[in-house]
Formats: sequence, structure tokens, C-alpha cells
Amino acid sequence: MQQARELVEDELRNLPLSGGPSELYEPISYVLKLGGKRFRPVMAIMSCNLFTDDFNKAIMPALGIELFHNFTLLHDDIMDESPLRRNHPTVHEQWNRNIAILSGDAMSIMAYELISRCEGNVLAAVLALFSKTALEVCEGQQHDMNYTSVGGVGTKDYLDMIGLKTAALVAASAGIGAAIGGASELEAGLMYRFGKDLGMVFQIRDDYLDVYGDSGIFGKRTGQDILQNKKTYLLTRSLELADPGLRAELTRWLERKGEDPAEKIAAVTEIYDRLGVKDMAVRAMNEFYNSAIGILDRINVDPIRKSGIRILADSLMNREK
Amino acid sequence: MQQARELVEDELRNLPLSGGPSELYEPISYVLKLGGKRFRPVMAIMSCNLFTDDFNKAIMPALGIELFHNFTLLHDDIMDESPLRRNHPTVHEQWNRNIAILSGDAMSIMAYELISRCEGNVLAAVLALFSKTALEVCEGQQHDMNYTSVGGVGTKDYLDMIGLKTAALVAASAGIGAAIGGASELEAGLMYRFGKDLGMVFQIRDDYLDVYGDSGIFGKRTGQDILQNKKTYLLTRSLELADPGLRAELTRWLERKGEDPAEKIAAVTEIYDRLGVKDMAVRAMNEFYNSAIGILDRINVDPIRKSGIRILADSLMNREK
Repeated sequence: MQQARELVEDELRNLPLSGGPSELYEPISYVLKLGGKRFRPVMAIMSCNLFTDDFNKAIMPALGIELFHNFTLLHDDIMDESPLRRNHPTVHEQWNRNIAILSGDAMSIMAYELISRCEGNVLAAVLALFSKTALEVCEGQQHDMNYTSVGGVGTKDYLDMIGLKTAALVAASAGIGAAIGGASELEAGLMYRFGKDLGMVFQIRDDYLDVYGDSGIFGKRTGQDILQNKKTYLLTRSLELADPGLRAELTRWLERKGEDPAEKIAAVTEIYDRLGVKDMAVRAMNEFYNSAIGILDRINVDPIRKSGIRILADSLMNREK
Repeated sequence: MQQARELVEDELRNLPLSGGPSELYEPISYVLKLGGKRFRPVMAIMSCNLFTDDFNKAIMPALGIELFHNFTLLHDDIMDESPLRRNHPTVHEQWNRNIAILSGDAMSIMAYELISRCEGNVLAAVLALFSKTALEVCEGQQHDMNYTSVGGVGTKDYLDMIGLKTAALVAASAGIGAAIGGASELEAGLMYRFGKDLGMVFQIRDDYLDVYGDSGIFGKRTGQDILQNKKTYLLTRSLELADPGLRAELTRWLERKGEDPAEKIAAVTEIYDRLGVKDMAVRAMNEFYNSAIGILDRINVDPIRKSGIRILADSLMNREK
């Protein structure tokens, strides 16, 4: 896993981004240097490696997936007017909004260019899966934007939304890696579902760490989702479970803006605790995780080949940052 | 040509755009219904038809090129803060900026999805050419944005810029159509160059009609480029040719904002006339047109097959709208 991650970092550094005009390419280089977990490309490479020793052929498409992910962050940050990403100014802050739109567009094109660099016998299938996924990511982002202004968003809606916005691309990483590695259509489909479940784990864990993580380890201040009234597993579950009185109290807190952030975080967390949604989130993660592992068990390769990707799955499940 | 255009319109209407969330897909549908010349997809289909009777296999990739073109217009309009496109409110005006960014992103993904729908033996080459082109279009747009705030932009810079922003996609339309039609690499390369030259003709003609067109026929008010100080063939040539006194006069007009639009248009047009740049633009178009036709002559197919695409070339050269 470490080896795959280093490979990804090396190859990202080697991407040709010094061309002109610099206003177009410097933001791309900047975004990629901000780092990130890189678990999507690592997933693609390790999923390929399940089926072949020649995992090198998954590297360029894996980088394409990472570029696409970073493109979505870049444009999402414009839409959300976020000033910071990974503790650095976002591109629209560091340069301006037009440069952020256009360098994002260029980044998505580079993503496709990299993803297209796979062998002819799988190219059409890889592209079809990627295009379907990329469109789903856009759909998920649109739902997410809609949900900020909509009441009555249930946990079902929330899960569908993160299924599109987050889990679909993790699923595609695993599915595309497998297809490039020579998996049968059935096996690539299983790996896609494995990735989908892990993507769900990843996002619910993110929601969980925002409230219950150690901000020193998590790398960002906790409680931000609460301050932004973001629809999370914890919030949608709470709104469903609360009796009318408690729901009214929670809603009053959601309507509070700015005044005393720490007070709002503490009050909402206290409501979460009263309702026991922390444990429910853990149970939901366990279910998705167990489903993922059950699917991985069905892949018919030497178990020793699975050890790496199993460690990756565990690291997503148990991560503190 | 008329048949190809109707085919394109029919197929555009048949694209599946009724899915959810509606905020994502309705703007795409809206943009496509605003119309347009559709000459890029028509070019792709007719270029395919040079080499095969089965031009149907170019239809989906041709639609993809049209979607990509409309995606660039959608995002360009956000960047330029344009209120109108084809006499209708732009997407960011009709909905909002975030919806315009995201539905544009979705549109570029749909473009790739459609372009990928070609036969396996040409898929990799088609994608490589398209990705290269799409990146060039972004580069051209970035140069164009840079040039609005930069003095000393020469005609050479201007021609390089429109070569990327406009002519590259026309070139790719012809090159991709040819490749899908079974052209050799050499012939597809020739058709690419044919399209590139015609793309240059198209843009210079656009600059020309903005000043010398009949606004009733052209479909937009003339003089808009002058009011926006857009870098055009006429302006960059004038700045090069004018003696210091006249250049200072022209620059003073460029610095004038708002007050009396008709006066500014008349004054700048009068300077163009004094310098004779109208005729120079016509000569430049003729040169690119003749180069395009010279390249078409080198394509080794029955001359009768070329009659359609020759009519298309003539219509771009002589258009009044």
C-alpha cells in the first residue's frame, strides 16, 4: 500500500504541467501539491494487482481518477465559497474565480486523457464506467447543494447522495483497476461493489470524525459540519429519531448563525449523544465494511493477493484522519 | 449538408436529459435548444462521409463535439459575465452561477461519453486527438482572458489564440470524422489541417461581421466587439499599423467606457477604414480558405464525394450570419 502511494506521488510530480499559459497550469500543479490521501488511485492500482503482477498498466488511469477527484474539489470549493482546502487557500482565493473554473475544466480533460491510457481491449469499458461515474459525481454534488436549502432530507436521501457524490468514484477506482488487471466482467463488477461499500464507509467515517475525531490528528477543526449545517449521517438520523420537542430544539440550533460557534457545536453534539446516533453511525459503517469484505471474499484469487487491499479497507474503516 | 444538419438536430433532441436532479440537466437541455450553426458536428459527419457511405458511425462523436462546444460557451459566459447568448438569458442568469458551473461540468462529461462511442480500432486515436484539442481550447480561453488586460497583443498572438480557442475544435471535428470514416493517418491529418484553416476563416469572418455585417442578418448587434475592446483581427492589425498619433487616438477610444456606444463604434470603425484593415481581413480569410481548399484537393477520393464539404467550406467563408 505504501509502495502504491509513493508510486502515485512520484507520477503526479512527473505530470507535464509547466506549459503555457501559466494561469491555466499553475493552479493544477498547486492543487496536486496540496496532497491528500490518494486512496482512490491506490485502490485502483491494488485492485489491478489482485489480478495481475503488472500493476503498472493501472498507473496512468489511477492518476486520472485522482485528477478528476481534485477537479471536483476545485469546482466544489468555488460553489461552496470555501476559503481553505487542506489548510491552504483555495484556487479561487489564491488566484480568482475565473482561473479556478478554467483550470478545473482543464484538469477534468487531463483526467480523461490519463484514464484513456489503458490497453485497447478494456478502453471502451473503462471509459463507459468512468463517464457514468463522473456524471453521478455531478448529480451527487447537485443533490448536496439542493439539500442545503431543503428540509426533510432523510437518511435514505443522504445515503443516496453520498453514494453518488463520494462512493461512486471509489467504486469506479476499484472496478477500473480490476478491469485493467484482466478481471472478468463479473469480477470487475464485484470489485466495483466492494469499492462502493468502502466509499460509503469513508464518507460516514468523515462525518463521524468531524464530530468525534481528535482535531490534532484529523487535521481539520472538528465541528465544521455542524457549523455549516451540512447534511451528515449524524444529522439526518437525529432529525428522524428526535421527538417533536427535541427536533424543534435541534432545528433552533441549526438556524443559529455565527454567534458562538463552540456553543452550537457543544449543543448539537449533546443532542447527538442523547439520541445515540454515534453508535448508529458506527453500526452503519460496520455494515458497509462487512458487506465490502464479504464481496472481496468472493473474488477468486489467491488469498495472499488480497492482503494489501484488505489493509487498505481496514485503514479506511479505522482511520483517525 | 442540410441533411447532416437535420440529423444533428434530431439526435440532439433525442439525448436523454430528463434524469434527475433537474437543476443539473435542464440547463443542458436549455442550452442545446438555443440552437446554433451546428457546423462542427456537420463537419465531422461530412468529413467521415468523404471516406465511407456509413456516416452514421460519426453521429455520436459529432454530437459529443457539439456538446463540448456548448459547454465551453456556458463556462465562457460565466467568466465573461455575459447576460445573453443567442438572444436568450445565459444559464448563470436564468438559474445561478453554481448551477452553470456544475451543469457545464456535466455537459463536458457527456461530451466525452458521446465521443467515446466509436469503433474500437479508432477509439484511442480519436480520444487522444480530442483530449489534446479540448486542452487547447482551454489554453485559448486563458490567453483570451489574459489579453483583455494586456496591451501589445499583436496579430500573431491573436492568430495563435484563435487557433487554440476556435480553430482547434473545428480541426478536430474534421480530423475525428475522417478517422472514424476509415481515413489513413495521413489523410486524417490533412483533414485536421483543412478544418484548422477553415476554423481560422470562421473566426476572422466573425470579427469582420461584428463591424461590417448587417445586424438584421447577422442576428446580433454589430459593434459589440468594439464596445468590449475585444482583441480581434481588425483591432490587433490596426494597433500594429497605426502611426503613433493614430495609435494614441485609437487607444483613447479603447479607454472610453459606456458614455456613447454609437459614437465609439463609429469612431473606431472610421479608424479601421482609414487603415484599410477591412481589406486585410478579407485577404487573410482568402489565404486561409485557399489553403484549406488546397489541402482538400490532396485528399485522394472521388471528387464528387468532396462536393458537400466544399459547400460547407464556402458557406463558412461567405456567411453573412
